[in-house]
Amino acid sequence: MNKICDVGEDVLIKKFSRIYKRSKRIIVGIGDDAAIIKASRNKLLVITTDMLVENVHFLVEKTTPYKIGWKAIGTALSDIAAMAAVPKTAVVSIGLPKNLSVKFVNELSKGIEVLAKYFNVDIIGGDTVTSPHRIVISITVIGEVKKGHFVQRTGARIGDKILVTGSLGGSRKEKQYKFIPRIKEALWLTRHGKIHSMMDITDGLSLDLYRLVTKSKVGARLYENTIPISHDAKNIKNALCDGEDFELLIVASCLTAEKLIKNWKYKNVSLTIIGEIIKGKGKIELIDKYNRTKKLIPRGYEHFTK
Amino acid sequence: MNKICDVGEDVLIKKFSRIYKRSKRIIVGIGDDAAIIKASRNKLLVITTDMLVENVHFLVEKTTPYKIGWKAIGTALSDIAAMAAVPKTAVVSIGLPKNLSVKFVNELSKGIEVLAKYFNVDIIGGDTVTSPHRIVISITVIGEVKKGHFVQRTGARIGDKILVTGSLGGSRKEKQYKFIPRIKEALWLTRHGKIHSMMDITDGLSLDLYRLVTKSKVGARLYENTIPISHDAKNIKNALCDGEDFELLIVASCLTAEKLIKNWKYKNVSLTIIGEIIKGKGKIELIDKYNRTKKLIPRGYEHFTK
Repeated sequence: MNKICDVGEDVLIKKFSRIYKRSKRIIVGIGDDAAIIKASRNKLLVITTDMLVENVHFLVEKTTPYKIGWKAIGTALSDIAAMAAVPKTAVVSIGLPKNLSVKFVNELSKGIEVLAKYFNVDIIGGDTVTSPHRIVISITVIGEVKKGHFVQRTGARIGDKILVTGSLGGSRKEKQYKFIPRIKEALWLTRHGKIHSMMDITDGLSLDLYRLVTKSKVGARLYENTIPISHDAKNIKNALCDGEDFELLIVASCLTAEKLIKNWKYKNVSLTIIGEIIKGKGKIELIDKYNRTKKLIPRGYEHFTK
Repeated sequence: MNKICDVGEDVLIKKFSRIYKRSKRIIVGIGDDAAIIKASRNKLLVITTDMLVENVHFLVEKTTPYKIGWKAIGTALSDIAAMAAVPKTAVVSIGLPKNLSVKFVNELSKGIEVLAKYFNVDIIGGDTVTSPHRIVISITVIGEVKKGHFVQRTGARIGDKILVTGSLGGSRKEKQYKFIPRIKEALWLTRHGKIHSMMDITDGLSLDLYRLVTKSKVGARLYENTIPISHDAKNIKNALCDGEDFELLIVASCLTAEKLIKNWKYKNVSLTIIGEIIKGKGKIELIDKYNRTKKLIPRGYEHFTK
């Protein structure tokens, strides 16, 4: 009998997506960073949900409850950023072992609260239940975006440039627990140029870029020497394959890309052109520092592989 | 150091609610069955989220994956019913052990799908992650309600009648896995009379009634011989204390209550007057079959007590 670990996460999501509906009120359904539904004539609702499980997405021994809370809502906010939407409200469900200290719970909620407040997001409800062995946090964030102003994974065109915010890799260290979702940067980008395609990098550049180009039915070429490597990352492999960067992967025309780089206003976050869109659905090439062309196998943090 | 089990669920929720906001766009915040925010001039969004954990909310050995899925979305739909709103969309997050069979996952999603479809709810997205030991399902449902048409837990007045749909108790058996959320009944009720207060019974009549009257700053008197006991329940104690009835607890004026009973149109679901609202915040009396007045200690399924 087939087990989950035999099929992998992407196949499981595909299986699941059979139950997802495509009705008239759904503008964007499953398969993007967030779903979009119609709220009124001009306003769209952007909805995303993320579940974090102890020992899978965070280690209690390696971080603080405050940072776990931060990461839990940050992950969902990063999805809202990926759609170029404004987060507004959130609901928080938590499963907690009974022997956990109330202090732990207070600090966990503080981490959620502080990041929510930073982006003016109201936490409006939730569910608290017992989870005998492990802490589980599930957060749904609802945002808003005007009609025609959101960005999907589809839309990348041959010849377009590929950009990233910040630097990549090394998330096993501190960054995965205390990142700033790129909400402001995403809004700035869509206000300063036509963005063809965008997503946030959560499972590693190579795997997430593969998802983006597959959705857009194109391929990609990356230039190794242009990819910004985080100082926590050891080498290019980390930058390509480590998960949880929570940076934006952006596709725009060559002209727009250059204009965005020129006008970029965030001093603490870089914006870098790292490659271009090419022909061939799902094909990804890496031009290494010796100018050799390598075929890049999409490989990142896959949740269900053995 | 204080542990969660020392303080109990209601105290924990109170602690959590400190992080919840009361901004202008929030019509109903934490502390009711669902939150309500403004979507447009006349339309309100009703949002609820529920988390189900294996061995806490369901036992894999005692039921089927189909019924687990059914219960997971049913629990959230029941909260939407409690606000007298119409459910529209849902997002589903699932944490799954890697060695679970794909067949199990397929049936689980089928259970979610079938009940969602029954109420015309579109599942628009979700998250699938690894959960090493136990299955965790977190579902957020978003519904709609017109301004002034929803019902909260507050609003019960002295002299009002207390009603319930269906029969209570015995949920340890089959019912908890295959109930029909009272969406239609709740909408019918609000269309046929002014409902002062309403909630769904999830932690047992005595505990949930205590929550309702406390919110409304009143007390309640129940008549033992009027309480409809489910045929799976052994006695009145089950009807008062068993959790997961997923029936509606309704408060309306005496006149309205009698009119609702007279016109009630659902043959398979009963509507019964079981008591009345009295003075004294949080005070609950039970008139037993020998006409003796007993003080009722609110006692139901509390998630975090030892």
